[in-house]
Amino acid sequence: MTTTVKAYAALERGGPVTPWTYKQRDLRPHDVRFDVLYCGICHTDLHSIGPWGQTFPLVPGHEMVGRVTEVGIDVTKFTPGDLVGVGPVIDSCRECPPCLAGQETMCQARATSTYDAPDRHGGGVTRGGFADQAIGDERFVFAIPDGLDPAAVAPLLCAGSTVYTPLKHWGAGTGKTVGIVGIGGLGHLGVKFARALGAHVVAFTTSESKVQDALALGAHEAVLSRDDQQMAAQANRFDLILDTVPAVHSMTPYVQALATGATLVSVGLPNSFDVAPLALALGRRSLAGAGAGGTIETRDMLGFAAQHGIAADIEMVGKDDINTALKRLEANDVKYRFVIDMAK
Amino acid sequence: MTTTVKAYAALERGGPVTPWTYKQRDLRPHDVRFDVLYCGICHTDLHSIGPWGQTFPLVPGHEMVGRVTEVGIDVTKFTPGDLVGVGPVIDSCRECPPCLAGQETMCQARATSTYDAPDRHGGGVTRGGFADQAIGDERFVFAIPDGLDPAAVAPLLCAGSTVYTPLKHWGAGTGKTVGIVGIGGLGHLGVKFARALGAHVVAFTTSESKVQDALALGAHEAVLSRDDQQMAAQANRFDLILDTVPAVHSMTPYVQALATGATLVSVGLPNSFDVAPLALALGRRSLAGAGAGGTIETRDMLGFAAQHGIAADIEMVGKDDINTALKRLEANDVKYRFVIDMAK
Repeated sequence: MTTTVKAYAALERGGPVTPWTYKQRDLRPHDVRFDVLYCGICHTDLHSIGPWGQTFPLVPGHEMVGRVTEVGIDVTKFTPGDLVGVGPVIDSCRECPPCLAGQETMCQARATSTYDAPDRHGGGVTRGGFADQAIGDERFVFAIPDGLDPAAVAPLLCAGSTVYTPLKHWGAGTGKTVGIVGIGGLGHLGVKFARALGAHVVAFTTSESKVQDALALGAHEAVLSRDDQQMAAQANRFDLILDTVPAVHSMTPYVQALATGATLVSVGLPNSFDVAPLALALGRRSLAGAGAGGTIETRDMLGFAAQHGIAADIEMVGKDDINTALKRLEANDVKYRFVIDMAK
Repeated sequence: MTTTVKAYAALERGGPVTPWTYKQRDLRPHDVRFDVLYCGICHTDLHSIGPWGQTFPLVPGHEMVGRVTEVGIDVTKFTPGDLVGVGPVIDSCRECPPCLAGQETMCQARATSTYDAPDRHGGGVTRGGFADQAIGDERFVFAIPDGLDPAAVAPLLCAGSTVYTPLKHWGAGTGKTVGIVGIGGLGHLGVKFARALGAHVVAFTTSESKVQDALALGAHEAVLSRDDQQMAAQANRFDLILDTVPAVHSMTPYVQALATGATLVSVGLPNSFDVAPLALALGRRSLAGAGAGGTIETRDMLGFAAQHGIAADIEMVGKDDINTALKRLEANDVKYRFVIDMAK
């Protein structure tokens, strides 16, 4: 049955999001349709409404939590009433080595983004969670574990997965010293996950006011990165640093803070990396990039979050306040993640 | 006994190298003094005579092979007559974790370069192998194994170590597909070592004429990197790529050639890295920097080279031709490494 979705879309590049409806596809055999209850606002949404956007009207939103309303005839994992989530990827080739390993976000044929990407099967374009309903293949839909606030879980689907996956991949855990650069939407979750994984956690922030916040989030230490003396004292001590800053910034002081052979992982992914090659070479260090995990890693993350009581610190906004929230996000004015109450 | 060294020095920044003598220090208990027989010319020599130089007159040269003439009273490893070599590092703090692990080139108190660095003990400045004699602590002097041409071994001390060490560190070997970018002084040794380590070796070159050369050196395949179609065909296939190019160049096509989770190691160390962060993130890939190995790794390299008959392809030049050789090196006109015949 065709469904009309009440969404919020940017009608043109750079425009505000405004109410807009569209017809959702009929259920495919493996589709799960759900009512969106909560949708987080990610920096990617800003970029997509702006320079990255391909097809307008564009419905952003890829940190959704919702309740299943209908499932396709071949769906085995979900039934109506289940609490589910969707993250930044909604489909992939399913045949390349990363897809076969459950790392679909790294699909070599390029994974299908949850919104503003060509649908691999039915044509048309994918649309996000700033909407009353959404749809997706069950492979890319996650069961939300009990015991966590569903609204605060929404940002885990992208931001949580984006910090948890590299922390696990690069071995953050007991006996390791791990740095988290930038205490925002990604970074505050990085501190929580790294701490729960057993690492000694050091937060780096440019903002004096966030030093105490970082400690409250679970960091063992917090370093004011504008203070050259504090930074110099960090030399050679980190087994892993997760850099969540999306703006171009000098990464060299963080590279110098790495121990021999260690890795700085950027999940903020600025437009370019500003780093001194010699600083990498002098410690045989690495600079890596990473994004949200695939389906296996995301399920692992959700289980770990439930076990350790980890969710995002959020500010809930109503549907009428999305544009205000986007503006505040652009100004970095949120602790730490906006979530839209889509059900109210 | 104080010794007068007949050296070739740049008397001022950018100047030619000309005959110049200096008094060498008296033997310390662990010192080894040797007659320099051969000295390779490294790109670093060009940089040091140019912008990097600290103290002039400056005696370049850190790829030396020579014969021991005199040893300090506590020297246990060498006796006069031994064939020895010295690479780019001649001292270090000996106390930091990399030093304790025999990785002195990554000394956290900054290793002492073989030339143009402050001497850690006696004051003064270190001086290189463009000279009839040299001196160094036995820890930083290597026994040259039998069976290899001593002249062709000289470039192994820096160039050989610089490619072998990361190949070993990042696991180049049987079953791995390894790329070598740039077929010059470093790259031609990279091809030889990677092949001998058992990897499937693919050379990347901008120069049509070097395609055949690379295959002759042992590469299984050679890719013309200016050919976009050939480059696109490399996507996602490499377990490791060693980039030996010293000029700033786009690394993104090489990053895209890496398999999921794989690493591009720059040993060419251009002034900056030109790489698309998203290309790293889409495959959770890493960009690393590396330089020559420490004493343990260099000894390992020399043993491996002897076992597999690996040495540099060299062009021998006389002492009167050093300036010509430097100019030709700057113009990339050498196959593949100049070695100065210092004994003749």
